[in-house]
Amino acid sequence: VHRVAVIGAAGFGGAVGAAILRRHPSIELTGVTARSDAGRRHDELYPAYRVPLQLEQFDPDAIAERADVALVAYPHKAAAPAVRSLRERGLKVVDLSADFRLDRESYERWYQPHEAPELLGESVYGLPEAHREQIRTAELVASPGCNSTAALLALLPLRGRIDDAVVDIKTGVSGAGREATEETHFVSATDNVNPYKTEGHRHVAELEQELPGVRFAFVPHLLPIDQGLLASCYATPSEPLTRDAARELFRQAYESEPFVELIDKPPHTRDVRFTNRATVYVTVAGDRVLSFCAIDNLWKGAAGQAVQDLNLMLGLPETEGLT
Amino acid sequence: VHRVAVIGAAGFGGAVGAAILRRHPSIELTGVTARSDAGRRHDELYPAYRVPLQLEQFDPDAIAERADVALVAYPHKAAAPAVRSLRERGLKVVDLSADFRLDRESYERWYQPHEAPELLGESVYGLPEAHREQIRTAELVASPGCNSTAALLALLPLRGRIDDAVVDIKTGVSGAGREATEETHFVSATDNVNPYKTEGHRHVAELEQELPGVRFAFVPHLLPIDQGLLASCYATPSEPLTRDAARELFRQAYESEPFVELIDKPPHTRDVRFTNRATVYVTVAGDRVLSFCAIDNLWKGAAGQAVQDLNLMLGLPETEGLT
Amino acid sequence: VHRVAVIGAAGFGGAVGAAILRRHPSIELTGVTARSDAGRRHDELYPAYRVPLQLEQFDPDAIAERADVALVAYPHKAAAPAVRSLRERGLKVVDLSADFRLDRESYERWYQPHEAPELLGESVYGLPEAHREQIRTAELVASPGCNSTAALLALLPLRGRIDDAVVDIKTGVSGAGREATEETHFVSATDNVNPYKTEGHRHVAELEQELPGVRFAFVPHLLPIDQGLLASCYATPSEPLTRDAARELFRQAYESEPFVELIDKPPHTRDVRFTNRATVYVTVAGDRVLSFCAIDNLWKGAAGQAVQDLNLMLGLPETEGLT
Amino acid sequence: VHRVAVIGAAGFGGAVGAAILRRHPSIELTGVTARSDAGRRHDELYPAYRVPLQLEQFDPDAIAERADVALVAYPHKAAAPAVRSLRERGLKVVDLSADFRLDRESYERWYQPHEAPELLGESVYGLPEAHREQIRTAELVASPGCNSTAALLALLPLRGRIDDAVVDIKTGVSGAGREATEETHFVSATDNVNPYKTEGHRHVAELEQELPGVRFAFVPHLLPIDQGLLASCYATPSEPLTRDAARELFRQAYESEPFVELIDKPPHTRDVRFTNRATVYVTVAGDRVLSFCAIDNLWKGAAGQAVQDLNLMLGLPETEGLT
Repeated sequence: VHRVAVIGAAGFGGAVGAAILRRHPSIELTGVTARSDAGRRHDELYPAYRVPLQLEQFDPDAIAERADVALVAYPHKAAAPAVRSLRERGLKVVDLSADFRLDRESYERWYQPHEAPELLGESVYGLPEAHREQIRTAELVASPGCNSTAALLALLPLRGRIDDAVVDIKTGVSGAGREATEETHFVSATDNVNPYKTEGHRHVAELEQELPGVRFAFVPHLLPIDQGLLASCYATPSEPLTRDAARELFRQAYESEPFVELIDKPPHTRDVRFTNRATVYVTVAGDRVLSFCAIDNLWKGAAGQAVQDLNLMLGLPETEGLT
Repeated sequence: VHRVAVIGAAGFGGAVGAAILRRHPSIELTGVTARSDAGRRHDELYPAYRVPLQLEQFDPDAIAERADVALVAYPHKAAAPAVRSLRERGLKVVDLSADFRLDRESYERWYQPHEAPELLGESVYGLPEAHREQIRTAELVASPGCNSTAALLALLPLRGRIDDAVVDIKTGVSGAGREATEETHFVSATDNVNPYKTEGHRHVAELEQELPGVRFAFVPHLLPIDQGLLASCYATPSEPLTRDAARELFRQAYESEPFVELIDKPPHTRDVRFTNRATVYVTVAGDRVLSFCAIDNLWKGAAGQAVQDLNLMLGLPETEGLT
Repeated sequence: VHRVAVIGAAGFGGAVGAAILRRHPSIELTGVTARSDAGRRHDELYPAYRVPLQLEQFDPDAIAERADVALVAYPHKAAAPAVRSLRERGLKVVDLSADFRLDRESYERWYQPHEAPELLGESVYGLPEAHREQIRTAELVASPGCNSTAALLALLPLRGRIDDAVVDIKTGVSGAGREATEETHFVSATDNVNPYKTEGHRHVAELEQELPGVRFAFVPHLLPIDQGLLASCYATPSEPLTRDAARELFRQAYESEPFVELIDKPPHTRDVRFTNRATVYVTVAGDRVLSFCAIDNLWKGAAGQAVQDLNLMLGLPETEGLT
Repeated sequence: VHRVAVIGAAGFGGAVGAAILRRHPSIELTGVTARSDAGRRHDELYPAYRVPLQLEQFDPDAIAERADVALVAYPHKAAAPAVRSLRERGLKVVDLSADFRLDRESYERWYQPHEAPELLGESVYGLPEAHREQIRTAELVASPGCNSTAALLALLPLRGRIDDAVVDIKTGVSGAGREATEETHFVSATDNVNPYKTEGHRHVAELEQELPGVRFAFVPHLLPIDQGLLASCYATPSEPLTRDAARELFRQAYESEPFVELIDKPPHTRDVRFTNRATVYVTVAGDRVLSFCAIDNLWKGAAGQAVQDLNLMLGLPETEGLT
């Protein structure tokens, strides 16, 4: 049994991580930390998740005594120093923030000066469908963003065959995080849809890294749903591609993937809620390839994928605790 | 005072039409008809709209005695014969179906053999922002589809300057109509988003007609909202276009439009609910022009626009009854 | 034309008040104030309301120069001093807070020491269906709470005939106000219902004042709706009452009320959204009288009713600006 | 391993039953039947449940060959003959309809002439918290209604101590069943709340049976939530009861119940979604005892409870497959 702690378990992503790990048959959840909610019980904040632990202030020494692995669910910038302190104490880490997803130049262009650049060399981008083998041997894995996960699963089988892609994301309010803001107020979000970050969303950097050479347009939209994210991708192939050929590429890419399901009709986010599954649909309309991917933004888009990474890193069955 | 009847006032679009006309200062609503709900009172079906009339079976002679103009809100194919019977009796007609929006060839490619092709010559595509002068003198106006309205308002200022455009539509459930189906069941629609008609939606024919020469991808998505529709358009200009230049094109196009508002930030459908307004935002990201338009699918996307057309046809102030 | 200012127009209630007054044919909206949002434009905060004014810091002298009447929409306790400063300058006031609804003893039992007790003598409880004549001549009117309004409209015709009543309130999230909190976060509110203030909600004090001698149980519940409030009342009559007799009492009470509609089937909040109407249904089951009232909590439950009061105070038609 | 079939697995309740049983460690799900959807795959109708079986027409002989136990999820009246045919073939049955919950007289008063009255003698009312020992030895168990389950869990600890109770139910749309109707249309249900069956709902018969001597008022309300049900109960005790005494009664009643959790604050349906748990809160306000119970209407209110019953009947751990 591996001992795992969740750093930042009061946010939506970390909380789901704690909930999954608490039930994981090969893992013991040995601690949960929080910044502003330290002292409260996790199951008071999230009764549905039933994690019977008290949230602690983050103390890397205390965590290192009790855990061999950490799932870090801090916001970007705050994550890097926490990850460093855990890596210095020998823990393997899966980090859910953006801090270790990109190379330094790209990171500093989209975010800010990096807080722990010396760790970038060892970090692996934690999309198992693209980097499974590196994840197995990694000690630091950067779990992809929710938008990027869905977009990449919709586009990876076309890698090397497309010149440009429009990625139109529809995301639930849980993606905006637990902070209560004007935007996340029920009265703002209900009966509404709006694009945001129309001039450029940082997640596009992950797409450019994983699908080099593709010209992206990338716009997320906020919807009145709770958990769920749909990526609608409109790609222009370099060479004409028939529907059958496109589907065959996707079939080959995903036939042995445990969490990606190629389906025969447009995906519904509702069908993958509270699961680590991604459903993908591909078709061709005119000279464009249209592909769609539905995930739960907190599962396959965050904590579920992080546990999938963690299973790989620990040599456990990849789906353990996730089905 | 003009006497107007609404044919098909039990559906969502026709019902809003009746509600608007009932309060219109220069119009008397002299009759409302329905197919399966004839005999019931309109304000029993739609208490919020407070139209104190009984729904009648459609009888063109009876309508012609009481009305000079008709707003027809039947489904396509059923609309054409009803429109013909009213035109034969001399009524001016605004039709909300697809039956008179396209030329015969295009219509029959996307829909079915046309039921009243002899009327196609006189019908005008009822998007005031594109065809105001023809609408003024028309006796038969085809009110555009909701998807087409939003997409066209987002793209018309780029007419002649773009080669292709991805149009990603997000639409509320009222757009699917009043019929109770598995798709419109609350339990199917809530906490969900899904694309549909991914292999080709008929509304693209209206885009191709109004913006000839543009290569479109067009996919609608169903969201758990009630009334509201957002078109997100990603266009590739033939010649590079700066953000300022793009905004200037839009400014010129819409500065004197009474119902189109060019705004400085991404539009929210919630802000135009229950109004005939369209909010439009344009920006440039990389070498693409991104434009977004939010409307209420039952107002500017259907009945509100039909009344706007009707005001033009009757020589009334264009905004009368709509503000 | 009467000149009216809205004090506290950035909150949900005050904002609706400003929106109504802006369109009121006999009123000029001469100012809107806000505490933390002063300096921002009202139509930036609430684009849908289209009030083209800048929010100012509250300055009673400046307001008194421009307005003869004020609608005050501050939270309780903050309202009383603002009301005093306006009354000292001769303005008539409709106050939406709880500060002037109760006598001092009752207020101080449920709330806190009163900030302006000297004004309690002149204030009138602003439920027109109960106190229309006093409102006409009042210079300070306390607009009732949303819960109290619905409960009272459901119970007033039984005044003097019931011993006890269970009042079970279902209220939309806008009732919790504009502040972004854990409770109003979309992810907390959606797909949820919960009772709150189960040990006693302050609005019961208004019920006890208006229906003396009745033993109340009163529990509000929060629902994932935006605007809307339903009071379900279960009253035990002192003397047996038939369904017909109960309905007759309600018919007499409400037959000439402009905003209360006695209906023949259970009310739906959706049918009164964005209106000042209340729909009321009464029936008898066993030996209990069951009555239900649906309102829009921000209209008849707050700002709409305040304007109704204001119309009465100014000698205007009671429904002006509200239909 | 026990072999179980679900009769009527296309409806919401039966579908959840199939989903639970499919994952139950001591049960093999050997068949699922449907009336109008026979021939379709269950996981096509309910992709999220991932039950990889084809829906069959109901054939009791075919079922009897493959199953020792059946969970019957037909509507009332249709259930009784199906149950009889299975009992005749020796299968143990848990029935989710109302057909075997009441004695004949009560049933025929609220429903219609009974289709299989000879089985009423052997049926047990399947609320484990009230009849656990009889359920263990029963061969036919009638799983309680969703409204009744929540109301009874909120009131059972007060059995013998109360004279009357107002039961105000708030229920999600899934409780109205899978049929697409005007009432279940998204556009009718969203942003709405309404009471229904105000003149008497049949579920009150179950309350009267389980809590004899109590005078009930019972009104359900439809809310825009998916799965979830809250019972708010306002009971008048025969003898005064303090809050502590009331809580002690509840504590004793539920301290060893595996699925009923007595909590310290008002329950939220969201916290018990997709679980078989019931959260109960009790307080005293004035001379009334107020108690609240939140459940998932499809789990503890239907299929989850049916599996709980089935575990008891089969001598399995009561919580198996349900946590």
